[in-house]
Amino acid sequence: MDYAQSLGKKIAAKKAIVGVIGMGYVGKAIADIISKKNFKTIGFVRPEKNTTTIQKKHLQTTTDTTLLRTCDVILICVQTPIDWTKAPDLQYLKRAARQIATNLRKGQLIIIESSIAVGTTREIVLPILKQSELTVGQDFFLAFSPERVDPGNTRFSIDQIPKVVAGLDEQSQHLAVSFYEKIINQVVPVSSLETAELVKLFENTFRLVNISLVNEMTTYAKAKDINMWEVISAAATKPFGFLAHYPSPGAGGHCIPVDPFYLLDGAKMEGLKLTLIEEAARINDVQPKKIVDRAVEILKHQKVYYQDFIDEYIRLATTSSQPQYKDSFSFKYAGLKGGRSVRKFSQLTHTYKILLLGIAYKPDIDDIRESPALKIWEQLEDLGCTVTYHDPYIRSYKEKESQSLTPSLVREQDLVIITTNHSIIDYKKLETYSVPILDTRNVYNNKKSSHIYGL
Amino acid sequence: MDYAQSLGKKIAAKKAIVGVIGMGYVGKAIADIISKKNFKTIGFVRPEKNTTTIQKKHLQTTTDTTLLRTCDVILICVQTPIDWTKAPDLQYLKRAARQIATNLRKGQLIIIESSIAVGTTREIVLPILKQSELTVGQDFFLAFSPERVDPGNTRFSIDQIPKVVAGLDEQSQHLAVSFYEKIINQVVPVSSLETAELVKLFENTFRLVNISLVNEMTTYAKAKDINMWEVISAAATKPFGFLAHYPSPGAGGHCIPVDPFYLLDGAKMEGLKLTLIEEAARINDVQPKKIVDRAVEILKHQKVYYQDFIDEYIRLATTSSQPQYKDSFSFKYAGLKGGRSVRKFSQLTHTYKILLLGIAYKPDIDDIRESPALKIWEQLEDLGCTVTYHDPYIRSYKEKESQSLTPSLVREQDLVIITTNHSIIDYKKLETYSVPILDTRNVYNNKKSSHIYGL
Repeated sequence: MDYAQSLGKKIAAKKAIVGVIGMGYVGKAIADIISKKNFKTIGFVRPEKNTTTIQKKHLQTTTDTTLLRTCDVILICVQTPIDWTKAPDLQYLKRAARQIATNLRKGQLIIIESSIAVGTTREIVLPILKQSELTVGQDFFLAFSPERVDPGNTRFSIDQIPKVVAGLDEQSQHLAVSFYEKIINQVVPVSSLETAELVKLFENTFRLVNISLVNEMTTYAKAKDINMWEVISAAATKPFGFLAHYPSPGAGGHCIPVDPFYLLDGAKMEGLKLTLIEEAARINDVQPKKIVDRAVEILKHQKVYYQDFIDEYIRLATTSSQPQYKDSFSFKYAGLKGGRSVRKFSQLTHTYKILLLGIAYKPDIDDIRESPALKIWEQLEDLGCTVTYHDPYIRSYKEKESQSLTPSLVREQDLVIITTNHSIIDYKKLETYSVPILDTRNVYNNKKSSHIYGL
Repeated sequence: MDYAQSLGKKIAAKKAIVGVIGMGYVGKAIADIISKKNFKTIGFVRPEKNTTTIQKKHLQTTTDTTLLRTCDVILICVQTPIDWTKAPDLQYLKRAARQIATNLRKGQLIIIESSIAVGTTREIVLPILKQSELTVGQDFFLAFSPERVDPGNTRFSIDQIPKVVAGLDEQSQHLAVSFYEKIINQVVPVSSLETAELVKLFENTFRLVNISLVNEMTTYAKAKDINMWEVISAAATKPFGFLAHYPSPGAGGHCIPVDPFYLLDGAKMEGLKLTLIEEAARINDVQPKKIVDRAVEILKHQKVYYQDFIDEYIRLATTSSQPQYKDSFSFKYAGLKGGRSVRKFSQLTHTYKILLLGIAYKPDIDDIRESPALKIWEQLEDLGCTVTYHDPYIRSYKEKESQSLTPSLVREQDLVIITTNHSIIDYKKLETYSVPILDTRNVYNNKKSSHIYGL
């Protein structure tokens, strides 16, 4: 029997059942679009994960991996993170491959969507699948097609984003292309699995390098008192040869700070050092530290204000006979400190209180993976600061809960750091509390103010 | 008298006379568009330069700098190169400023278009102009507006490329914006001279970093036998967050390999090391060396072929009694070497002959400034190779003349390196000569062939 042909027919008729392993951001988004295109879709979730069960017309979730056998097309959308040594952590990918191998039957097409190092499909996943003793390219088929899901991107729906596809062999390629052509407007076949694997790593490495470049540029712009956001916005008027990236506390998420390490790891095995990419990764790693340094600088700057005021007050109180200076304490006090430093003035030792506003890795999403805010948090605590956070999308992190953004919470802070610019926060109101704000995301459009600080 | 107002009226009525100092690529292109918009334009050229004299309806060239006095608006478009230590070489800029200062009169607007380090307009050019004892912002006006001329770009004419403009003061800003609004479709005012200076440096630094990134990626792709051009073309289908740059022997020209050093030099003065940009510059500097290494690798590979052939021939001649091996010499010979190695076989010592095809820094232009081809040339000669070149746009370089691309010239080469892909070259014909070709620009679209080599 020609399994390629029969699977091809099932796909063409949208009779193929599609399994999606890993129902995180990527898996969910892809399962969603596949089911909307009228393929019966099963999302495979891990029992320990307590993922919300989905029961829609064409889409349901299950924890029962034996149902993989019922699927004609299986997409692997598990996470591929890095461990603490920055080495690829393939445990989820390998587990998915083993689950498939255990349930593999003739006529199945396996497609990896997770970002992986060059060669992983052929050298790591294929050997696991081969344990089933079925023959690839004849009994079953294997392809790689990197996901391009951009969380929070409302400009492009998934089916509008062209999909790069490579098969292990001609049959696999043909089947995978036919499958995606039923889902995605434009399919881009490439000549090998490795080419497709590198495409994805390159796309995200491009992002990391350019984010680190703009963060490095911002350091220089600040030294020259130039608004980097204005520079970027002017540069972006060039109709060719430029693409805007913006300063931030660093790139976060499951892709941009992670994928370059898959590339660097692969290069190391070839005896190659990719020094530009290494440097970009290093800059991204130290970016949270730079935010912490800036925070400390602002706290000191605030303290200098207190000291200036005290010095001036003592000078006036001891040297001047003019009556208006009698009120200078309360006047200057109110003007400079908004009443907050009474406490400080009377307190000799003080623990700085810092509120992180937004701890997700980017605006309007609920994902904290590799978020620079978490590193800032950790480093501030190391310095002895008391850190709390508010994030409408992240209910709790470690043992702390997101605090309500009440006036009293804000007013008791020494500093608020806008780490992520979620759009539903009322920044105008926040500003009125006169508490020092470190705006790492330019929500105040580089506004000059006595208590709003930029990067 | 209000000089700003009277100059503003002259500009509005297109009665202002415009002087352009420096009639290189940039100056010529800008003088051309200004005169086409019906401003009387004078291009100032240096007598020793033997620049072609232009006498058009609204545009003429002169060597007489006293005519600067007759101009209402003066654009400085001189080159701002780097010296051999990679430090900014401001001799042309300073000379232009001195020429203007000598001839400065009330009611003139001076605009710098050359790429310069942040602060140069204010800290270097302004003090020279002030020697005239006229008052800036009142008697004369000063602005900076970086040129965005892209030699060889046929997609955008100069007036279609938005122009970033900053004035020293409000009057200067207003006048410079009014002037460019008469020439360019979209004018982008920014808040300070320094902002505009940084915009230009940032745009070109972005280019350098991304060119170095893709050259670094290409090293890895080659190690994995992946076609980097295919990777880029697939990545470029992503509709957001990616901009294609292509592998090459390195970025050349008066801008991209130069401007980042103006930035690095400025950063050094602030005590800052911009490590990512430094690394990108370093990679671009060693890129020609990588092409030379590749050339040597190919020459060796060719040589190995000879040796293999000789070994095989001796083995067959001495061990085999089968008649078909009698012809093996001529058969294999014709197949592998196309008849060329007779000479080599009989010659024990041999100087490699290498032809560089295209020495301009990019296709279809006649500019060799900072061209990587020149560095490749130098390094090949250092290795003892005999280097000649063909470039339809560069008649001669140093004491060598561009050679006609005749069959006999090509056939006597050990290697042809396509350093620049001028579009008028007949690459199909070149291929038929069966001479080894190192194609650094992908003109053969990564074609697999016994004598065409990629990066």
